[in-house]
Amino acid sequence: MAEQPVVGIIMGSKSDMPAMEACTKELEELGVPYELVIASAHRAPAKVHEWASSAADRGIKVIIAAAGKAAHLGGVVAAYTPLPIVGVPMKTSDLGGVDSLLSMVQMPSGVPVACVAIGGAKNAAIYATQILGATMPEYREKIVELKRQMAEA
Amino acid sequence: MAEQPVVGIIMGSKSDMPAMEACTKELEELGVPYELVIASAHRAPAKVHEWASSAADRGIKVIIAAAGKAAHLGGVVAAYTPLPIVGVPMKTSDLGGVDSLLSMVQMPSGVPVACVAIGGAKNAAIYATQILGATMPEYREKIVELKRQMAEA
Amino acid sequence: MAEQPVVGIIMGSKSDMPAMEACTKELEELGVPYELVIASAHRAPAKVHEWASSAADRGIKVIIAAAGKAAHLGGVVAAYTPLPIVGVPMKTSDLGGVDSLLSMVQMPSGVPVACVAIGGAKNAAIYATQILGATMPEYREKIVELKRQMAEA
Amino acid sequence: MAEQPVVGIIMGSKSDMPAMEACTKELEELGVPYELVIASAHRAPAKVHEWASSAADRGIKVIIAAAGKAAHLGGVVAAYTPLPIVGVPMKTSDLGGVDSLLSMVQMPSGVPVACVAIGGAKNAAIYATQILGATMPEYREKIVELKRQMAEA
Amino acid sequence: MAEQPVVGIIMGSKSDMPAMEACTKELEELGVPYELVIASAHRAPAKVHEWASSAADRGIKVIIAAAGKAAHLGGVVAAYTPLPIVGVPMKTSDLGGVDSLLSMVQMPSGVPVACVAIGGAKNAAIYATQILGATMPEYREKIVELKRQMAEA
Amino acid sequence: MAEQPVVGIIMGSKSDMPAMEACTKELEELGVPYELVIASAHRAPAKVHEWASSAADRGIKVIIAAAGKAAHLGGVVAAYTPLPIVGVPMKTSDLGGVDSLLSMVQMPSGVPVACVAIGGAKNAAIYATQILGATMPEYREKIVELKRQMAEA
Amino acid sequence: MAEQPVVGIIMGSKSDMPAMEACTKELEELGVPYELVIASAHRAPAKVHEWASSAADRGIKVIIAAAGKAAHLGGVVAAYTPLPIVGVPMKTSDLGGVDSLLSMVQMPSGVPVACVAIGGAKNAAIYATQILGATMPEYREKIVELKRQMAEA
Amino acid sequence: MAEQPVVGIIMGSKSDMPAMEACTKELEELGVPYELVIASAHRAPAKVHEWASSAADRGIKVIIAAAGKAAHLGGVVAAYTPLPIVGVPMKTSDLGGVDSLLSMVQMPSGVPVACVAIGGAKNAAIYATQILGATMPEYREKIVELKRQMAEA
Repeated sequence: MAEQPVVGIIMGSKSDMPAMEACTKELEELGVPYELVIASAHRAPAKVHEWASSAADRGIKVIIAAAGKAAHLGGVVAAYTPLPIVGVPMKTSDLGGVDSLLSMVQMPSGVPVACVAIGGAKNAAIYATQILGATMPEYREKIVELKRQMAEA
Repeated sequence: MAEQPVVGIIMGSKSDMPAMEACTKELEELGVPYELVIASAHRAPAKVHEWASSAADRGIKVIIAAAGKAAHLGGVVAAYTPLPIVGVPMKTSDLGGVDSLLSMVQMPSGVPVACVAIGGAKNAAIYATQILGATMPEYREKIVELKRQMAEA
Repeated sequence: MAEQPVVGIIMGSKSDMPAMEACTKELEELGVPYELVIASAHRAPAKVHEWASSAADRGIKVIIAAAGKAAHLGGVVAAYTPLPIVGVPMKTSDLGGVDSLLSMVQMPSGVPVACVAIGGAKNAAIYATQILGATMPEYREKIVELKRQMAEA
Repeated sequence: MAEQPVVGIIMGSKSDMPAMEACTKELEELGVPYELVIASAHRAPAKVHEWASSAADRGIKVIIAAAGKAAHLGGVVAAYTPLPIVGVPMKTSDLGGVDSLLSMVQMPSGVPVACVAIGGAKNAAIYATQILGATMPEYREKIVELKRQMAEA
Repeated sequence: MAEQPVVGIIMGSKSDMPAMEACTKELEELGVPYELVIASAHRAPAKVHEWASSAADRGIKVIIAAAGKAAHLGGVVAAYTPLPIVGVPMKTSDLGGVDSLLSMVQMPSGVPVACVAIGGAKNAAIYATQILGATMPEYREKIVELKRQMAEA
Repeated sequence: MAEQPVVGIIMGSKSDMPAMEACTKELEELGVPYELVIASAHRAPAKVHEWASSAADRGIKVIIAAAGKAAHLGGVVAAYTPLPIVGVPMKTSDLGGVDSLLSMVQMPSGVPVACVAIGGAKNAAIYATQILGATMPEYREKIVELKRQMAEA
Repeated sequence: MAEQPVVGIIMGSKSDMPAMEACTKELEELGVPYELVIASAHRAPAKVHEWASSAADRGIKVIIAAAGKAAHLGGVVAAYTPLPIVGVPMKTSDLGGVDSLLSMVQMPSGVPVACVAIGGAKNAAIYATQILGATMPEYREKIVELKRQMAEA
Repeated sequence: MAEQPVVGIIMGSKSDMPAMEACTKELEELGVPYELVIASAHRAPAKVHEWASSAADRGIKVIIAAAGKAAHLGGVVAAYTPLPIVGVPMKTSDLGGVDSLLSMVQMPSGVPVACVAIGGAKNAAIYATQILGATMPEYREKIVELKRQMAEA
C-alpha cells in the first residue's frame, strides 16, 4: 500500500485477526489506505501508548480498535489521541461478546469510544470511511455507491 | 446560531430532551454549530425520511441520533444518508437501557451506527467533534484542548 | 398460489430464509395464501417503504416480519401500514437472539409490533392465522382443528 | 358499555390494574368495546379456564392478557381459545420485567402469544384494534387516523 | 414397577425425555416408585388438568415438572394440586435456559414452584426423595446413604 | 411457640429479616411451628454447621434458607443435612437478585437446593407446608384450604 | 498517616469517593497504612501511568482500583506494575454495575485483575490485608481477629 | 515437588481439571510450588473444611479455588481460613459461566473472594504469584520477567 494510511487498525491479540479480515478487506474494496498493528493494552502498554500518541502525526485520521473480554484497548487508545475511535467488540466464547461490548461502549464522560456491533468488523471499515466522508467528497461518494449497490442487491 | 450547522441531532421523543441537554451544551462549549429535530422513526417516518435524506445537502457532516427502548432511529436515519451516525442509547426505566443499546449497536452488515454509552449525551457531542476533527484542524484542536483540561482537572 | 395473498412475509436477509421455512410451510398447511419478500430496512429502505405502504391496498391483512440483531424491520414496516405486524426475532450467533427480541418487542408508544418467540417462525404463521380467524370463521376453524390435533398428539 | 365487547382483557392481579389503565383508556378513545376480568392463572385456574373457553362464543375476537413475573396467564388462556392473544409483560420490581417478557413471549410450538413491550398497555390496545382492523374497515380507519395524528404531533 | 408410584413426573414435550432420563434413573437407584406422563400445558391442557387434579388421590406425594422456554407447566400443575412441585427448567438452544428458569421460578404469591438448576434432572429426583424423607425414615435414610457415598467418592 | 418446630428458617444476615417476615407470618397463619436463626455461612460457619447438622435430630423436617448476593447459605446447609432445603434468593440493590437466584438454584449434581422466586418469602412458607403435606394430611388440608380461599378472593 | 503506605488506592473519579469510604475506613480499623489518588485512566492517563509505574518503588505492596462503567482503571494500572490489583467494580445507575464488573474481571491472559463484589469497598480493604497477611504475620493476625469478631457478632 | 507448597489449589469436581491445567502449568513455569485437591463444598464438606482450616498451618499462603455453576467453593474455603482466596469461575454449558462468576464474586461483607475472569486458570496462577510477590522479591521478579516477555512477544 503505497498511499499514506488514513485509517489505523489496532487489535489486542493475533487471535482477533481472522475476525478482523472482513475489516481490512472492506477497506481495500473501498480504497481506503490503512495501517495495522497488533498490540495488547495490557501486555504491551508502551507499544500501544507510542502507537496511539503518534497516530495523528503520522496522518492517521480514524482509528479502529478491536478487542475482546475486558476490552480496554479502545479506551486506552482514546486516552492518547484526539482522533475518533471506532470500537469493535469481539465475540467471546463464554459470554458471546456482551463483556467486550460493555467494556468498550460504556466509556465515561469526556473520552468516548463509539462501537459498532459485536464482531462488526466490516461495519467498522464502512464507518471509518463514513467519518472520512464527513468532509472528504471522494470517500463520501464511495459510501453513496456502496448504498446504491446494497439497495440493488 | 448564525453559522451553518455541521452536526444534526435527532431524537425520537420530546422526553429524550432533558437527557440530551448535555449534548447540546457540550457542542455549544466546543463551538460546533448544530441543528436539532424531534421526530420518531415510527410515528413520523416521513419527517425522519425527509430530514435524513436531505441532511448531507444541507451541509450536515455528522448526525447524532438518540432513542430509547426499540431504538430504531439511528438505523432508520443511517438507511437514508451516507453521513456517519453517532447513536445515543437512552436509559430506560425497566431495562436500564440495555434494550436501547442492543437495538442501536447491533446493526447488520453494511449500515453501521456507532454508539456511545447508555445516556452518553455529552460524549456524543465530543465524538461528533472528533469526527469533524479527523480532517478539520480547528475542531481537532478543540479536542486536544479538552483533553488538556481534563488531564489537569 | 392462485389465491389472493392475505399474509405478507418480509425478512431482512436471505440468510433468514431457512429459519422462516417453518412459517411458510405452516401457512401452506393451514391453507393461508401469502406473499414473501426479502428486503432489508437498512440496505433497501425504499423497497421496504413501498412494499409496506402498499400492502393493505394489495389485500394483505397481516404482516409477518422476521429480522435479527438490531431488528428494526418490524418497526419500520409498522410505521408505514395500519396492518398488524407479527415480529419474529431471529436467533443470533453471539447473543442468542436477545438483541433481536428486545429490538423488536420494545416498541415505543403508538406503534406496536407484537412478537412471538425467538425463532418462532411456525408460531408466527399460526398467530397470523389466528388474527385472520378473529373475524373470519374459515380461518378460526383451522385453528380449532389444529388445537384438536395437538391435544390428541 | 352497551355494545357487545370485542376485546377481552384479562390480568393476573388487581395490582396490574393501574398499569393497564392506559390500555382501557386507549380502547375507549378508539371506540373499541371491551370486557375486563381479573383472574390469576395460578390462584383461580377454574375461573380463567371458564372465561377463556367461552370468550369466542361471547363474541370476543381478541384477548389482551397482562401478567408479571412467571407470567403464564397469556399461555394458559391461549391453551383454551382459538382467539389471538396479545401479551403485556408487566414491569417487575426486581428484574425490570425481563422475567415477565420471557415467560410470555417464549411460547412453545403450536400455541403462540404475541407480546408487546414491557408495560406496553397502550400499545396492546392499539394492536388489538389493528387485529380487528385486519378485516373490519371501521377499525382499520381508526388506526389510520391515529397514525395521521401521531405524524402531525 | 409394581409399587404404588409416589412421585409423578410430567414433562411438556417428548423432546425433554433424554434430558430427564437422569431423573428417572436416579429415582430407580434410590428405589422411589414413580409415574411419568408427557403432556404440554399449552397443547394438551385438559390432559394436564386431569393428571394434576387427580395426582394426590392416586397416591402421588411429590410432582416433578420439566419444561423449557416459556415453561408454564410447573405453574399450571401447581394450580390444580396441593402437592409440592419440583420444577426442572430445561436448557434452551438460544437463551441457555434462563427463559425456562425465570418462567418457572418467578411464581406469584400463593402458588410456589420450587426449582432446581437448569437441566437439573438428577437433582430433581434427589430433591423429591428428600421431600419424601422429610417425614418417611426409609427415604431419608436413602439420602443419608447417598451423601455418605458422595463424601467418599 | 410451645409446639415442636418442624420448619427451620435460617438467613444470612439480620438485614434479611424484614423481607422474611412474610414467611414467618404465613407459617403462623398456616399453623406451622418453626424455629429461626440468623447465621452467615461465611462469617459464622461453625454456627451454621452445627445448626444444620443437628436440625434433623431436633425434629426439623424442612429448612428454609434465605440469602442474598453470592447466596451460599442454602448450599452450605444442604451439605450438612438430608432435609429438603427451600431457598429464598434475596433481592439485591445492584443486580435485582439475579445474583442471589443463580447462586442458589444452580447447585451441582447431588446436592439440590430448590428455590422459590426472588424475594419469595411467603411462597417459601407455603412450599414448606406443601412438603409437610406430602405425607401429613393435617398440613395438606391447610394448603387445600388456602387454595380454596385464593380461588374465591 | 506517618507510616509508609503499603496499600495504594486509586479511583477513576471523585464521584467514586463516597462509595469507597468503606474501604479507607476498614483499612484504618485494620491499621493498614495507605495512600489514595483520584485519576482517570482515560482523562489523565499520564498521571495513572506515573502513579502505577512507581508504586512498587514507593513501597506499595497491593493496589486497590475502583472504577465504574467501562472500568479500565484496574487493567491499565495492572499493565504498569507487578503488584497485585484488587478491583472494585462500582455500581452504575443504569446497568447496576454489571458493566463495571465485566470490564474489570474479564481481563485477558497474562494480566489479571482480581475483583471483589460490585460496590465491595470494605471487602477490598479486607482482601488487601489478606494479601499482606499471606506472608506478614501481623496482618494475618488482624484477619484472624476480624473473623473471630464476625463469628461472635 | 520437593519444595513446600505455597499455593493451594482446590476445585469442586474432577471435571474442572482440564480447564485448570493452564493454572498448574503456569505455576510450574513460574516455579511456584503448589498442592492440589479436588473436593466439593457440597458433596464433601468435611474434607473441604479440614483442608481449608489447616492450609495456613501447612505453609500455604494463597488459595486458588475453582468451581462452576452455584460456585460456593471459594466462599466456603474463605470462611475457614485467613488466607487470600483467588476465585476461578468455571465456564458453564448453559449460562456461559455468568452463574459461576456471580456466585463467586458477589461475596457479602467481611469475607471476600477475589475473582479472575471466567475460565481464567492461567491468570489465577499469575495472580497468586503476584500476591506472593507483594512481599517476596523472588516472586515479584518472576512477574517482572513475565511482563517483560509479554511486552516483547
